[in-house]
Amino acid sequence: MKKIDLNCDLGESFGAYVIGLDEDILPHISSANVACGFHASDPAVMAKTVALAKAAGVAVGAHPGYPDLQGFGRRNMAVPPKEVKAMVQYQIGALLAFCTASGVAMQHVKPHGALYNMAGKDEALAMAICEGIYEVDRDLILLGLSGSKLLSAAEACGLRAASEVFADRGYREDASLVPRGTPGAMIEDEDLAVARVIRMAKEGLVTADTGQDIPIRADSVCVHGDSPKALAFVQKIRTGLEAAGIAVAPVQEIIR
Amino acid sequence: MKKIDLNCDLGESFGAYVIGLDEDILPHISSANVACGFHASDPAVMAKTVALAKAAGVAVGAHPGYPDLQGFGRRNMAVPPKEVKAMVQYQIGALLAFCTASGVAMQHVKPHGALYNMAGKDEALAMAICEGIYEVDRDLILLGLSGSKLLSAAEACGLRAASEVFADRGYREDASLVPRGTPGAMIEDEDLAVARVIRMAKEGLVTADTGQDIPIRADSVCVHGDSPKALAFVQKIRTGLEAAGIAVAPVQEIIR
Amino acid sequence: MKKIDLNCDLGESFGAYVIGLDEDILPHISSANVACGFHASDPAVMAKTVALAKAAGVAVGAHPGYPDLQGFGRRNMAVPPKEVKAMVQYQIGALLAFCTASGVAMQHVKPHGALYNMAGKDEALAMAICEGIYEVDRDLILLGLSGSKLLSAAEACGLRAASEVFADRGYREDASLVPRGTPGAMIEDEDLAVARVIRMAKEGLVTADTGQDIPIRADSVCVHGDSPKALAFVQKIRTGLEAAGIAVAPVQEIIR
Amino acid sequence: MKKIDLNCDLGESFGAYVIGLDEDILPHISSANVACGFHASDPAVMAKTVALAKAAGVAVGAHPGYPDLQGFGRRNMAVPPKEVKAMVQYQIGALLAFCTASGVAMQHVKPHGALYNMAGKDEALAMAICEGIYEVDRDLILLGLSGSKLLSAAEACGLRAASEVFADRGYREDASLVPRGTPGAMIEDEDLAVARVIRMAKEGLVTADTGQDIPIRADSVCVHGDSPKALAFVQKIRTGLEAAGIAVAPVQEIIR
Repeated sequence: MKKIDLNCDLGESFGAYVIGLDEDILPHISSANVACGFHASDPAVMAKTVALAKAAGVAVGAHPGYPDLQGFGRRNMAVPPKEVKAMVQYQIGALLAFCTASGVAMQHVKPHGALYNMAGKDEALAMAICEGIYEVDRDLILLGLSGSKLLSAAEACGLRAASEVFADRGYREDASLVPRGTPGAMIEDEDLAVARVIRMAKEGLVTADTGQDIPIRADSVCVHGDSPKALAFVQKIRTGLEAAGIAVAPVQEIIR
Repeated sequence: MKKIDLNCDLGESFGAYVIGLDEDILPHISSANVACGFHASDPAVMAKTVALAKAAGVAVGAHPGYPDLQGFGRRNMAVPPKEVKAMVQYQIGALLAFCTASGVAMQHVKPHGALYNMAGKDEALAMAICEGIYEVDRDLILLGLSGSKLLSAAEACGLRAASEVFADRGYREDASLVPRGTPGAMIEDEDLAVARVIRMAKEGLVTADTGQDIPIRADSVCVHGDSPKALAFVQKIRTGLEAAGIAVAPVQEIIR
Repeated sequence: MKKIDLNCDLGESFGAYVIGLDEDILPHISSANVACGFHASDPAVMAKTVALAKAAGVAVGAHPGYPDLQGFGRRNMAVPPKEVKAMVQYQIGALLAFCTASGVAMQHVKPHGALYNMAGKDEALAMAICEGIYEVDRDLILLGLSGSKLLSAAEACGLRAASEVFADRGYREDASLVPRGTPGAMIEDEDLAVARVIRMAKEGLVTADTGQDIPIRADSVCVHGDSPKALAFVQKIRTGLEAAGIAVAPVQEIIR
Repeated sequence: MKKIDLNCDLGESFGAYVIGLDEDILPHISSANVACGFHASDPAVMAKTVALAKAAGVAVGAHPGYPDLQGFGRRNMAVPPKEVKAMVQYQIGALLAFCTASGVAMQHVKPHGALYNMAGKDEALAMAICEGIYEVDRDLILLGLSGSKLLSAAEACGLRAASEVFADRGYREDASLVPRGTPGAMIEDEDLAVARVIRMAKEGLVTADTGQDIPIRADSVCVHGDSPKALAFVQKIRTGLEAAGIAVAPVQEIIR
């Protein structure tokens, strides 16, 4: 049976600041990307999030970002690859402590926000991240944008890698995302979005913004849990996938 | 042969800010307390410090502190024990990542500054710290003030504990330190300081500020590496100890 | 006509993190305590908040706190008075820039959270805060807990001071608040709370938790705007005050 | 008599972290760029630095940077101009509080590090900074790289602007600096560097890396005070300028 992972960013609250409907989204996803205190989260939130994911049977991954709480890790920062590597190792280690304390095996690492985007296009940055992960735990799976430099760097390092796709985003012919703010960036029609995900999962194809079908590898679909509308959409995707005979499962059951 | 550990805070630089003569002090000590990014240090400094300690054959420990870079972790903060536990686990985990990446086994955990002082007197805080350590790695050794709540908490948790003494500080009859700013707080005479350390190591006795000899357990001596004068004093202590037939060795060779 | 101020903490959002129904509460209050980036807020939020307050005709005050975003400024910190003075001046100055840029005259300063509580009981801290304010702008009004050290320090410095009372909190016979978590800390009955505020404003009396009436000065009532329930309660207080013949006005119209 | 300003970054220490020989450099310079807590400094350091500058008769300016203490404000960050404007206003205001408290009139604003470099080439960023300054105090002088977008933006805003040159850096024919790490980036020969500064001040000319003389406006020379060698070089520049009949004076005496 064909399988696909549903991954969602979790544990993004910070002190008195609450973001995300974590407890509501957990029953619907298979992998959680847990923020590690640089772009979001704090130690108490991390401890709680790992415990919640464990209770829900959801696989846990580290979600390291730039040290930019004010910008939520979404602002590009010019950090040398060697320092990025150390930042990533620091954040993975911090989350590993909570995983160990909770008896959870960490499954994956997905870079966050600007780090994800920059490393997807920058080979040196992608290699720094993947080497950093490999040195800490070579069994971790790298989760990155399908077709990006992150995936090729993981392969070059000997890390397993999972290809992420987006339900609500348009693709260009080169398999890159249509940039936000550009026509075609967002797939607003939810039924179309679900149909696209099913096709990516089953056929490995998606229609680019030019109308051309392109090949795309889809191991995991990125979903959001920050609003009731997002929650409803995740349920719709899950129902659609299952109706199409595709099981939802964590990437460790998909990637070998 | 009688043994004692010499421990020193290391890796306290941060970005462009440099503190400590780390490379100079390493040949003279047996254990390094490596700052973990909350009161000092950053990921790049941590990676470098672990590598330096490894190259020098010095045992590595985590040195977690309050999240207070501006106050260097020296300002008391009212943080609930449960959050302190998470803070400690976070910091230990972060350093563990660099230890794993460098092939170094972490030896110990020594709380820093205000956290060390507060937990030394507060049972709930001491228990939170020790439980936090135990859950992450029960083989880690807790390094705390001789006779303090940190040591009794470690025992209660099933953690091994090492008793720390100070060469340059006066003791009260209850084995607490004479508070800074109080007469007798500092032992200014270096020869006397060395003689006191030797006696603590050999006889398990120190003369309190009242003139009374009191029993004290000395597994490790806290030394400093932040000035040429401090460096010279460490060499003097080491030479004195060895001349008195006491070997300098990491706490893992002293505590069973 | 008798007047009283309704003050509310505003501008507590930070980057992607949103706290408070600022736009909804503004029409109901007369003074806004604007967070200054240490315990909450950021420059963009401050600029926006000052503009919103101006548009609503609400007086603006600085709301300086400890540098503790993770703890929302609610954790006691041991900071020397001299450094607290500098922290307060820094935060007032930062907000003054936005007031100047928006053509708003800053009205008052209300310390936040742990700083408010600690300074209310610690004369040296209270003096440091008041001297800090005085040196930056001697026309600013200090807003502090009625009967606390903050008010006496303001007087000693030559600063005007406004006495703050709480609608939903119990008082002890010495006019201090019944600590949270203690029986009688909270006035749960909203009608009773409104009646107490009206009595404080009109008669200068409140019933302590012992049942004894005590004198209390009430220039300003602290209200909250962080939930629909809080919003409704503020409207209830305002309606009650006006029905009792008490006008709601900023403290600058009350304190001479 | 021809005049030129010598400006130096000051007040870059942070908590326990010390950078810069501030007290030693002050007698030799005419303008101090005081860090404002984002890329360096803290409130206590700012208070002390303003007092030191006042005592030395050195003009004070704000030195706002990106919120990046770990990177010392040297890492490019993608921050929208509107947020940069708010960041700059926040930092100017914070320093203004200490100036007011010390009875010092702030003279200028010089963006720091990555903000200086990025705004020098990006018109929208430069305009955001200059508008931010103008709204807070239109009498402040913008200090920026000679010939850069910062200077043209200041003019467009109605702000006075001072053109900064570098003694130890090579110039290209378009008056931009030869990038660090490129041949010709640094003028290593101190006598040559001094001669170049004198020529820039007197003739308004500098020899570019191509050998071609180019026009350059020099109101202020950037000097450093972070090492004994830097200190000695500043004295050499000053002596050289005075021997050449050029007086050292703050930019407010040069720019009208």
